[in-house]
This record gives sequence, structure tokens and C-alpha cells, in this order.
Amino acid sequence: MPTLHFRDATPDDIAIMLELSHAGDARGPDTPPLERSTLSDPRYRAAFDEIAADTNHRLIVAERGGEVVGSLQISVVPGLPHFGMKRGMLENVHIRADQRGNGLGSEMVLWAVEQCRAAGCGMVQLTSNKLRLDAHRFYRKLGFEASHEGFKLRL
Amino acid sequence: MPTLHFRDATPDDIAIMLELSHAGDARGPDTPPLERSTLSDPRYRAAFDEIAADTNHRLIVAERGGEVVGSLQISVVPGLPHFGMKRGMLENVHIRADQRGNGLGSEMVLWAVEQCRAAGCGMVQLTSNKLRLDAHRFYRKLGFEASHEGFKLRL
Repeated sequence: MPTLHFRDATPDDIAIMLELSHAGDARGPDTPPLERSTLSDPRYRAAFDEIAADTNHRLIVAERGGEVVGSLQISVVPGLPHFGMKRGMLENVHIRADQRGNGLGSEMVLWAVEQCRAAGCGMVQLTSNKLRLDAHRFYRKLGFEASHEGFKLRL
Repeated sequence: MPTLHFRDATPDDIAIMLELSHAGDARGPDTPPLERSTLSDPRYRAAFDEIAADTNHRLIVAERGGEVVGSLQISVVPGLPHFGMKRGMLENVHIRADQRGNGLGSEMVLWAVEQCRAAGCGMVQLTSNKLRLDAHRFYRKLGFEASHEGFKLRL
């Protein structure tokens, strides 16, 4: 199996990242389909540029055989306690559905954990929808502990 | 009851913020006491300065009658999906033990939510230790949904 290659995303990756994100967030037949016409909305490019301009945030794509098969965002968040311990936050962790279960997801997340360690983080954290039991097993296997409740409030 | 006054923390608030954080994280008699000699560790001031220098992060203290009775960190994290929706993250949310149950915590968190809204966030999120059932009730009452598992990995 070709190994994964990780790189920072470019604006050309915006559409594929949004496709992976939409597919990963899908919750059965009631999920509305991805509206492709929206992928070129200028707000996406503006958000991409804002993330790319801040060294505390990285959009990463994982390529295999020249194809993007996964993506995630790594954010480094400073903090005061524990002698100023930084936290690495993983957001929008997605692997293409046909690539799950073959170890690529583990490779990608463990790579991201190492990026957080290299950035000086003392902890890596993420939240995973309570419906995604498969994802919970996956993170537990990688050493993550589901020690917290993840609360969200939509504005 | 005097109302709360919210302000960005100054370096003079580092010790009280660490005290609130230590008391809030305490988990019964096995918790080691706060080592006061460490409060002046220069890493705390360095972390404070880093947070203060980045407009995406704010350390907030809540004062009542001239005394600091609560603190929290607000971090605004950019993202790509949902037209570049930003997330407000609340970290280290602490109210002094003798001030709980009187509405000050709600006032502080709702104030922080409004700061996130004003910063353009489409969501506010936080994680709360699974042991803190009182905190979970508190956040649910404020409209937060415990929709996610909060995974942590110590490095």
C-alpha cells in the first residue's frame, strides 16, 4: 500500500476538504446533499487565507497515490495553567469513506499528534460526535481518553 | 448583590487565575495543594504575554465588589466548513467555590458567549470533565448540548 504523504493544504484543496467534511458529517439519509455550487463561495477562500496566515493553525491534507484521501485542521491554543501549557486541537478530522479501516486514519492522527508535540503542546484534544461510536473506538485505540463531555452551543 | 464586572486580565491577575484554576480542577483529598512558590514562575508571565498579544485569545476575570471571583479564557478558532465558521472556545472556566449557585457563573458564561458572537463565531464549544455533573447541568441550562465526546491525550 502506498504510504501517506502529508502536506499543508493549498487553495486548490478547498473543494476536496469540504467534500470530505460534508461526507464525514453526514448523518444518514436525512443529510442534505453537498451543494457543489457553494464550493466556490468566496468566504471559503477568505477563511483559508486567514488560517494560512496564522502559524497557530494548519489545514493538512493526506495524499495517497497522488489523491487526497484525508484532511484535518491542527490548531495550537495557548493557555495559562500548568506553566502555560499549550493545547493542540484537532478539528475536522476526515478520512475518505473507502479508506477507513486500513490504518490510514491512525497514521494521519498520529502524525498530527507529533506536529502538536513539535509545536510545544502538552496535550492534544478533540471532540467527536456521540453518534460516531466507530470514531470513539478509533481514538481510544490511539491512546485518547474520553474524559470530558463536549458541549456545543450554536449561535 | 453587586453585579459582575468583566475585564481583560492583567499580569497582576496571574496568581488569582491560577488559584481559581487549581481549586476548580481539584478532585478531592488526593489533589496535591497549590504550590504557591510556583506562581511566580516566569513561564506564567510568558504565557500571559503570548495570549495578550494575540487578539484571538482573551483571558477574562470577573470582579464583584472589587474582588476577582471568576475567570475564563476565550479563544476564537477559525475553520473552513460552513462558509468558514469560526468557533469560540471557552477554556479554564472557573468561579470561586463560595460564589457558585448564585447566578454569577451563568452571567459570566453568557457574557463570554456574547463576546464570541461579537467576534463572528457561529458556535461556542467547551469540554467539561465527566466527573463534574454539576457543571454539566449548569451548561445544559445555558443552552449548551453535550453532543460530543471530549477526547484528551496527554503528551
